[in-house]
Amino acid sequence: MSDARYERSRAAVFEAVCAVLVAEGLSGLSVDRLAAESGISRSTIYRNWPDMGSLACEVFDELMHRDAIPMGSDPSAALHGYLADYARRLNDPTYAAVLVALIEGASRDMAFAEVHGRAFSQTRSRAGEIVRHAQKQGLIDPMRDVQQCVEDLVAPFLYRRLVTQVRITRGQVDDLHTELLERWS
Amino acid sequence: MSDARYERSRAAVFEAVCAVLVAEGLSGLSVDRLAAESGISRSTIYRNWPDMGSLACEVFDELMHRDAIPMGSDPSAALHGYLADYARRLNDPTYAAVLVALIEGASRDMAFAEVHGRAFSQTRSRAGEIVRHAQKQGLIDPMRDVQQCVEDLVAPFLYRRLVTQVRITRGQVDDLHTELLERWS
Repeated sequence: MSDARYERSRAAVFEAVCAVLVAEGLSGLSVDRLAAESGISRSTIYRNWPDMGSLACEVFDELMHRDAIPMGSDPSAALHGYLADYARRLNDPTYAAVLVALIEGASRDMAFAEVHGRAFSQTRSRAGEIVRHAQKQGLIDPMRDVQQCVEDLVAPFLYRRLVTQVRITRGQVDDLHTELLERWS
Repeated sequence: MSDARYERSRAAVFEAVCAVLVAEGLSGLSVDRLAAESGISRSTIYRNWPDMGSLACEVFDELMHRDAIPMGSDPSAALHGYLADYARRLNDPTYAAVLVALIEGASRDMAFAEVHGRAFSQTRSRAGEIVRHAQKQGLIDPMRDVQQCVEDLVAPFLYRRLVTQVRITRGQVDDLHTELLERWS
C-alpha cells in the first residue's frame, strides 16, 4: 500500500474507532464493525491493526494530544486558556467517550494503563508548567504544592462532565479561573 | 422458588455481577458467565434476571447505597465523616469498577442513565444536607452556593481515584476537610 493510501485508510479507521466508541464503548470494537463503519476492507484492517486493543490505544494517544493550544506568557491568561481548552475537550462527545473508555480499560488492561498513564502525566506536566510559571510571576503563592494546584485545575470539570454529565459553560470557566486565583494568591 | 432460596440465589448472582465487572467490565456480563461464577443455574438466572442491563442496574442501585453511615449533629465531624466514607467507597475496587461501568453505560443506555441520575442525585442531596446544616451552625458562610460546595467535596477524590488511579489516604481526607472549612468559612 502506498503511503498516501495508508494514511487515508488510517484516517478512516481512526474515525470509525471514535464513532464506535461513542455509540457502543470499547466492547463494540471489532474488525467487522470497523470495516462496516469505515468502508476499509477487513483484510486491510487485519493486516495493519491486528489487535483491537493496540488500535484503540493508538487512537487514544492521537486524540488526547490533538489540537493542544500554545500558551502565552501572561500567567493569568495561560491559566484561563488551559481551563477553556480543557472544557472544550471534555465537551466534545468523542473526547469524553474516549476518556471514559480509557479509564475503564486502564483498570484491566496493561496497554490501556500505559496510554492512560502517559496521557495523564503529559496533561499534568503541561498544567504543572503553567502553575510554576505563574508562581515565578507572583500570581500564585510559591509555597503552594504544584501537583495540588494541578488537581484543583482539572478535578472540578472532570467531575461535572463525567458524573453529572452536563456541558461546561464559558461562565464556569471564568468562575473557576477567578476562584482559583483568589484561593492561590 | 422459596423466598429464602431466592434470596440466596440473588446474593450469589449479585456477587458474581460485581466480580465480573471488576475483572472484565460491563461487556463481560452474560448469563453463561454469571452462571459459571455464581454456581446458580442458567435457567434460574434467565427466569429471574432475563435482562443483563436491568440486572446490572439493580446491583448498582444496591451497591451505591450500601453501608451509608449515619451523620452526627456536629457539622465539622459530619463533613469529615462524609469525606471519609466517600474515600472508603472509592478505595473499594468493586465500587470503583461499578462506578466506571455506570458512567460508561449511562452515556449510551437509558436504564443506566436513570440509575446513574438517581445515584448521583441521592449522593448530592445527602452531601447538600450536611452542607446546609453546617451553614445553619455558622461553620460555612451561608451565602455559599450549596451545589458548588457539594462539588468541592466530591470532585477531588473522584478525580484522584478514577484518573490518577491511586488510593485515597486518611491524611488526604484530613487535608481536604481542613482546606474546605478554611475556604468556606
